[in-house]
Amino acid sequence: MGKTKIGATTLIYPMPTTLVGADVDGKPNFLAIAWCGVANSQPPMVSVAIQGHRYSLKGIRENMTFSVNVPSVDQVKEADFCGIRSGADVDKVVACGFTVFYGQVEAAPLIEQCPVNLECRVVQMLELGSHWLIVGRIEETHVSDECLTDGRPDVDKVRPFLFVTQPRPRYQAFGDTIARAFNVGREIEA
Amino acid sequence: MGKTKIGATTLIYPMPTTLVGADVDGKPNFLAIAWCGVANSQPPMVSVAIQGHRYSLKGIRENMTFSVNVPSVDQVKEADFCGIRSGADVDKVVACGFTVFYGQVEAAPLIEQCPVNLECRVVQMLELGSHWLIVGRIEETHVSDECLTDGRPDVDKVRPFLFVTQPRPRYQAFGDTIARAFNVGREIEA
Repeated sequence: MGKTKIGATTLIYPMPTTLVGADVDGKPNFLAIAWCGVANSQPPMVSVAIQGHRYSLKGIRENMTFSVNVPSVDQVKEADFCGIRSGADVDKVVACGFTVFYGQVEAAPLIEQCPVNLECRVVQMLELGSHWLIVGRIEETHVSDECLTDGRPDVDKVRPFLFVTQPRPRYQAFGDTIARAFNVGREIEA
Repeated sequence: MGKTKIGATTLIYPMPTTLVGADVDGKPNFLAIAWCGVANSQPPMVSVAIQGHRYSLKGIRENMTFSVNVPSVDQVKEADFCGIRSGADVDKVVACGFTVFYGQVEAAPLIEQCPVNLECRVVQMLELGSHWLIVGRIEETHVSDECLTDGRPDVDKVRPFLFVTQPRPRYQAFGDTIARAFNVGREIEA
């Protein structure tokens, strides 16, 4: 089995597709962000990487707050739209028919139709080159009632999707469960 | 449609499952990390969140280098093992039967059996609380030859998997393609 070097590239599978929200000049805007990860557990934090020229970044800087919304497969078209159009040119809330609500964090707009919504306050901003890496402390999580089972979020009801860049940019549904985590590895003797 | 507040929690779907590699005291070790994301494109960078007490963190601090390996569904057992056991207690390379190789970045061990391997140099380390968020510049990417199509990485051959925490920790395969990215959103008129 050989290996081929393809140069320095950001080839991580999979990435989530999230809609990052910010109020810009007092109006809610949403940007599709796949470069989003968890950064810390105690306290809960998330990181998002945003290009320096993005319209939403202006709002995040102004307010030092933002939201992360996890869309379901029912919102794939709207999520893609929020990735290819700029809030400087179009009102994405109107175009996508989003119902916006707010929680406890000011200027962190949340999308009713997305099953999971995180309210965040900026704790760090790193200028890395093409992108700013923004670390936010998660202040509250909202989950659509129909996506809960026994009061807990249920991925089979959330029905999120994933983003893949190679060989061609596409969105994929989640597939079959292949193993229990923190469990299947016990089969290895050591 | 109502919403329920479930408190501040790191609920992002999906997370990748990666094996982060580091030489610790001159020996390769691998840690399963789901909290891994892309941080920058120019130059390419990745972020990984690692708990402060982790054995691998010692090696990353020593050398200021690390690797990110993307396992396939064939390595789910080994990946899980690397998440539930510590390199302080067990030689994970031996236990998992990994074939280790090195590229151009010293002390960044790569796993032959994983279809995608990134070599990284640390550019930032943020102490956020329970975790350190480590940003690494990607210096080279290796892809297993049998996972290339026309010289490009092909996700259908890589066969990565994803990590889900809610409602119960599990690994899932990738499912069907539901839409082309940077394309399906054009159906929305604005």
